[in-house]
Amino acid sequence: MTDIDAVVDGVRFDVAGLVPAIAQDADSGAVLMMAWMDRDALIATLTTGAATYYSRSRGRQWVKGEESGHRQRVRSLALDCDGDTILLTVDQTGPACHTGTDTCFTGRAVTVSA
Amino acid sequence: MTDIDAVVDGVRFDVAGLVPAIAQDADSGAVLMMAWMDRDALIATLTTGAATYYSRSRGRQWVKGEESGHRQRVRSLALDCDGDTILLTVDQTGPACHTGTDTCFTGRAVTVSA
Repeated sequence: MTDIDAVVDGVRFDVAGLVPAIAQDADSGAVLMMAWMDRDALIATLTTGAATYYSRSRGRQWVKGEESGHRQRVRSLALDCDGDTILLTVDQTGPACHTGTDTCFTGRAVTVSA
Repeated sequence: MTDIDAVVDGVRFDVAGLVPAIAQDADSGAVLMMAWMDRDALIATLTTGAATYYSRSRGRQWVKGEESGHRQRVRSLALDCDGDTILLTVDQTGPACHTGTDTCFTGRAVTVSA
């Protein structure tokens, strides 16, 4: 069994056949975004090294940056303890967010002081 | 409208009334885990400062560390660009993962070399 087979077999996809994937910047450690992968998007990510997700609204796979050029080169991919979440460490070209910000979590933040 | 109201109103909960929440260590930047929040868990997190999630398997809220003592004190909470993912920055007491590892992404990782 290859590493890729072992990873794919270890994923617990949800009832829709999807798994959430968190992209983290390999250098800064910033959490860039979260998107979804189906089995084929996961395999594409592992075989090409280009972060590939599944768009629930468009009903198809998409390569991150395929339109914007703001691609994510994946350095490593890890499953969590129960196999239902993926963490990617990536080299991000340009802003990760389609809004033009470095990460998708830039806008609405609150300090929790309780 | 308070900050808490604004955050809660900005969340796009899924059809099950849940939103994925990523916990990141405020000091190291490590991504610790991903879990789910319902509206009440989110409000509890914001009002108490203790990361509170919703267990889909147990069908109830749980305060992180309520049994293990490995609590998460939330420093800040951010919504992503489309309001359907939450990022918490936390001070983690002890290991974040119930398996005893620092993060839930420690075990199964592959280097992506393509």
